[in-house]
Amino acid sequence: MTDHDSANKIETLEWTGHAGGSLRLIDQTRLPTELVSIDCTDPQTVHAAIRQLQVRGAPAIGIAAAYGVVIGSQSPDLSAEGLPGDVFRTGCMEVCDYLATSRPTAVNLFWAIDRMRMAVDDAANLASPPERTEFLLAEARKIHEEDRQMCHAIGRHGAALIAGNLPSGERSVLTHCNAGGLATAEYGTALSVIFTMQDNGDPVSVFVDETRPLLQGARLTTWELQQRGIDTTLICDNMAAQVMREGKVGAVITGADRIAANGDAANKIGTYSLAVLASHHQIPFYVAAPSSTFDLSIETGADIPIEQRAASEITHSFGKQTAPDGVDVYNPAFDVTPAELITAIITERGIVQPVNRNSVLLTMGNLVV
Amino acid sequence: MTDHDSANKIETLEWTGHAGGSLRLIDQTRLPTELVSIDCTDPQTVHAAIRQLQVRGAPAIGIAAAYGVVIGSQSPDLSAEGLPGDVFRTGCMEVCDYLATSRPTAVNLFWAIDRMRMAVDDAANLASPPERTEFLLAEARKIHEEDRQMCHAIGRHGAALIAGNLPSGERSVLTHCNAGGLATAEYGTALSVIFTMQDNGDPVSVFVDETRPLLQGARLTTWELQQRGIDTTLICDNMAAQVMREGKVGAVITGADRIAANGDAANKIGTYSLAVLASHHQIPFYVAAPSSTFDLSIETGADIPIEQRAASEITHSFGKQTAPDGVDVYNPAFDVTPAELITAIITERGIVQPVNRNSVLLTMGNLVV
Repeated sequence: MTDHDSANKIETLEWTGHAGGSLRLIDQTRLPTELVSIDCTDPQTVHAAIRQLQVRGAPAIGIAAAYGVVIGSQSPDLSAEGLPGDVFRTGCMEVCDYLATSRPTAVNLFWAIDRMRMAVDDAANLASPPERTEFLLAEARKIHEEDRQMCHAIGRHGAALIAGNLPSGERSVLTHCNAGGLATAEYGTALSVIFTMQDNGDPVSVFVDETRPLLQGARLTTWELQQRGIDTTLICDNMAAQVMREGKVGAVITGADRIAANGDAANKIGTYSLAVLASHHQIPFYVAAPSSTFDLSIETGADIPIEQRAASEITHSFGKQTAPDGVDVYNPAFDVTPAELITAIITERGIVQPVNRNSVLLTMGNLVV
Repeated sequence: MTDHDSANKIETLEWTGHAGGSLRLIDQTRLPTELVSIDCTDPQTVHAAIRQLQVRGAPAIGIAAAYGVVIGSQSPDLSAEGLPGDVFRTGCMEVCDYLATSRPTAVNLFWAIDRMRMAVDDAANLASPPERTEFLLAEARKIHEEDRQMCHAIGRHGAALIAGNLPSGERSVLTHCNAGGLATAEYGTALSVIFTMQDNGDPVSVFVDETRPLLQGARLTTWELQQRGIDTTLICDNMAAQVMREGKVGAVITGADRIAANGDAANKIGTYSLAVLASHHQIPFYVAAPSSTFDLSIETGADIPIEQRAASEITHSFGKQTAPDGVDVYNPAFDVTPAELITAIITERGIVQPVNRNSVLLTMGNLVV
């Protein structure tokens, strides 16, 4: 089912060559006006790319850091012929510690680095430096590939769900923010559903909310869809209701940042608004997210804290002041959509529907009860 | 009830001096970062100010054009001692024709200029140029004052409505776009309700949607509220639902551009979205608009055409390209809120509630049946 060798693939992250190679990243801060890659040949460049949001999206950050450990193991100090295993181990662990400081709050970053620490322990027992690096590269590639497979599984489940619910020829969805390949290894979560439908010869047209304040929809999602030749229409967030009223939207699909045990889902601000509007217009509202997004230690969305961000994101976000000095601003980064407004949650393990505590535990149960 | 002599008044338009004076406008394109006035001493400057949106809002444009005719009548050609009345009339009518080309679609512009044409007919019968100009100035001042009174009447009716419905101490409203003094002679329509409550010693706090794509809420409404010391919080349009969910909004108040006989109301894009969200959260949704906004020749909102505007408003509006080249854009300037989602329409003639054909005709009936 994967088509990551197709001509129009988007390689958010790519390991160039075998051991001895380097990590190539798309610089997301330059999109959509410039498609520029960064070649990371030392851990410092990987660290800077994560810190400066040149690579963003929790899964993508974790994969970048994993490759960053491989790059560190290739340094002259750590790849000298005859280097004792414990010196190699200590040096690589320092690289891990360093990379973990790039974004202190991204959970996937620590998870990926912890996997690399375990691989470092094993690699240190191997005799030659090339073998050690090869072993670490295999683990980084595994993390990368697992994420790719997760995206494709979400795409398959979601494409089947939509094909079963929206009449062929009228398949138009609306999405918000960027839950695409740029945030993951390849296909993304919400966008994976769309890409998979296209792969199946069953294309959809897509309305994209620009997603104020940081315009991830306008800057990143439209770009990804355009790269793949998908019929894409950009709107301002406040136009979604009108587009729904005109009958132009068959379903809404978004990603999620954290999902509580009862199915309440936190996602980029504006998602809850779309869920209310979709309900009013009797349009299905789908959330696409991997099982790692579920936090079963949290009973409901009321326990998910809402991060407040800087006023300047709204008043000065594009190099121009657009509000008076000193005006108060409310800028929540996320909102929580209650389970009762979510038609289904699309995961790599299957579909959670209806969305409630029982069905969440049933789908996630064999993973984390 | 008027307080246009208070210290914190906003004079969108101001005639400086008596006859022989000039029109002073706030340049709305420079707000909110600069408060700059334009002194119009010839009709060309008035024409340019309207065309370039330095003065905007249908009532404000009409008033500016009316004063523009006065300014034209003061030109050396038309104010020469002993000038025959028919030469004066012809010259002034040419000024009217010229000013009418400044914004070809603004209905209030033609309405105000037509009133000035009738005044020109009468003024031409007067003997001396100062008398003629004085006569025209009186008519322009009348148009200006009528608009001011209309705004204050809307404010009085709306303030009483809200005081009767929202508990004191919890009076917080949300508004969209700019239905304020900048768009009218002084107090505006939706904002007049807020300003009047403040005048009554019964202040409200206000959430302001930034109002993409042109950010009239961020640029103009927050500025007006801030000028009057009103507790103001700017949000992105996609945050309104979250603010409502948090119980921070007691009512929504917007303006309207055109209202059909059944009460369906066209207004700035995003208004319909707010009406759906307000309904979901059981928050009253009010429209504030003068009786001149009602178009009883239109039965329902389905007959109101929706203007589509340029893609660049969305893709390039912050002085920086924020979407890929060539992306399709849907950019409706307005949407239509169905009467059933409007709790009440606040007019200078009273409150239309419930909003339906009968109550619209009852309130408007003595004006235009």
